[in-house]
Amino acid sequence: MSEFFNIVEKYVSGLQVTICNAIEKIDGKKFSEDKWAMKTGGGGITKVITDGKIFEKGGVNFSSIKGKMNDETAHQLNVEPQNFNVCGISLILHPFSPKIPTIHMNIRFFELEKGKTWFGGGTDLTPYYPYEKDFKHFHQTLKQACNSAVPNIYESYKKNCDEYFYIKHRNEMRGIGGTFFDYIDGNEQNFNLVKSIGNCFLDSYLPIVERRKNEEFTDDDKKFQLIRRGRYVEFNLIYDRGTLFGLKSGGRIESILVSLPSEVNFIYNYSSKPGSAQALMEEYYQPKNWTESK
Amino acid sequence: MSEFFNIVEKYVSGLQVTICNAIEKIDGKKFSEDKWAMKTGGGGITKVITDGKIFEKGGVNFSSIKGKMNDETAHQLNVEPQNFNVCGISLILHPFSPKIPTIHMNIRFFELEKGKTWFGGGTDLTPYYPYEKDFKHFHQTLKQACNSAVPNIYESYKKNCDEYFYIKHRNEMRGIGGTFFDYIDGNEQNFNLVKSIGNCFLDSYLPIVERRKNEEFTDDDKKFQLIRRGRYVEFNLIYDRGTLFGLKSGGRIESILVSLPSEVNFIYNYSSKPGSAQALMEEYYQPKNWTESK
Repeated sequence: MSEFFNIVEKYVSGLQVTICNAIEKIDGKKFSEDKWAMKTGGGGITKVITDGKIFEKGGVNFSSIKGKMNDETAHQLNVEPQNFNVCGISLILHPFSPKIPTIHMNIRFFELEKGKTWFGGGTDLTPYYPYEKDFKHFHQTLKQACNSAVPNIYESYKKNCDEYFYIKHRNEMRGIGGTFFDYIDGNEQNFNLVKSIGNCFLDSYLPIVERRKNEEFTDDDKKFQLIRRGRYVEFNLIYDRGTLFGLKSGGRIESILVSLPSEVNFIYNYSSKPGSAQALMEEYYQPKNWTESK
Repeated sequence: MSEFFNIVEKYVSGLQVTICNAIEKIDGKKFSEDKWAMKTGGGGITKVITDGKIFEKGGVNFSSIKGKMNDETAHQLNVEPQNFNVCGISLILHPFSPKIPTIHMNIRFFELEKGKTWFGGGTDLTPYYPYEKDFKHFHQTLKQACNSAVPNIYESYKKNCDEYFYIKHRNEMRGIGGTFFDYIDGNEQNFNLVKSIGNCFLDSYLPIVERRKNEEFTDDDKKFQLIRRGRYVEFNLIYDRGTLFGLKSGGRIESILVSLPSEVNFIYNYSSKPGSAQALMEEYYQPKNWTESK
């Protein structure tokens, strides 16, 4: 394990603490904490908030694991099978209120025994109510964070995100996107970029939570949220590479599936009332430019 | 399309009507009906029961479709790509009460343009309360139906089912099994077997519904059901071949995903109270002999 790996590990571990502290402060409820170890070496800390004042369920995972790459993964990466270290943070927060979006963020750093290193990760927002102001704030914050580290990189990561968090069988995104990146070299410049993305998380999200947390909502608003949460489950279990890789490679199931929302509905042939906030929201689940200067 | 195909199609179409009529009689609520057509030819009828007296959500699909096999499927089947016809019935019923099990049944018949034909299908029960009497009744009825058509075939199909409806990442079955078969020749004997399985559906299930429909249940019973429904969703979206094939090949999404229960919970690190009915039930989600003569 290199010195650089230790520095990245310390960063993501610290970010878990910073984020959980801020969420606890706004919610009032404390995260529970499970420390766990992997047979192959390393382990993690899964922090979970359940039935808080604002958040119905949220998981913030830190992990740093040693593993041995299997042949299939080695082939995909075009390297020889070898030992690796990977550390990272992943989080998903599901609020009770349909006026507050669900958010996901993750950062991971891989180091192969024979020297290759890379970062992957991203942030994406899944709103249930059509507040353009919030969507613009989220994307604008990410754009600023990305492009201050590497000029024009937001535009490329935003496009990746629109393509990745896409529910193919429904021809729609799971939310309104954000950033997504993978296999970017594990160098200093990219670490600065990754830190900039990680550090902007609270700024991208908490102002939205503050703005919406006391708003009332209707039964139709709530019903729509429960159904969209079902789409979130569809995406995570059918398409999400991290989830499927984790489940199939013997990862800690409860830490992987903490991403799923608590209460979910699957309704046959649901359709929103024409002209309703829900019908408008549905139009936003497609790639769209949220940071136009005009 | 052969005369035999027409006969099978008529059988599964009639079975849909028979089953829906019986379910409507016991529940009191009528199924809604959607007729739909595929661009490639053929179509189906999706019958759905929602918020009935007994059944929270249930879908009974009949379909008869013309299609063109893609290269991947042809390779898997070890045949040339060609046109095919497939007809079938598939159903899932999710009761409100955790004392009544969820049930699934399906029968499908494939006919390739160049002559090859086969049946596939199965029935499996997903209970949420440890009533051994019900599990024995279900398996005993299936055994009688299978083995009266083809001696000792139940034992083989039961084993297939234990292996198929298995949630690998959790090392547990989604329920208590039943029967599962695929690629069995489309001959008269096998059609008799398939009919015997289809015709025993109501006998295998309705006596359980009758016995349990007026029983009371506790909050713990309900909570467990909602969590086990989550496992049902995990199985269907991660492993079920029919669901994944349907979604990825452009099938009618609402008819495929009608299999998912309406209200579902995903709870972090759930565990049943030691000694509770739920803890006992968990022990039954493993392969077990339900038809011992002793």
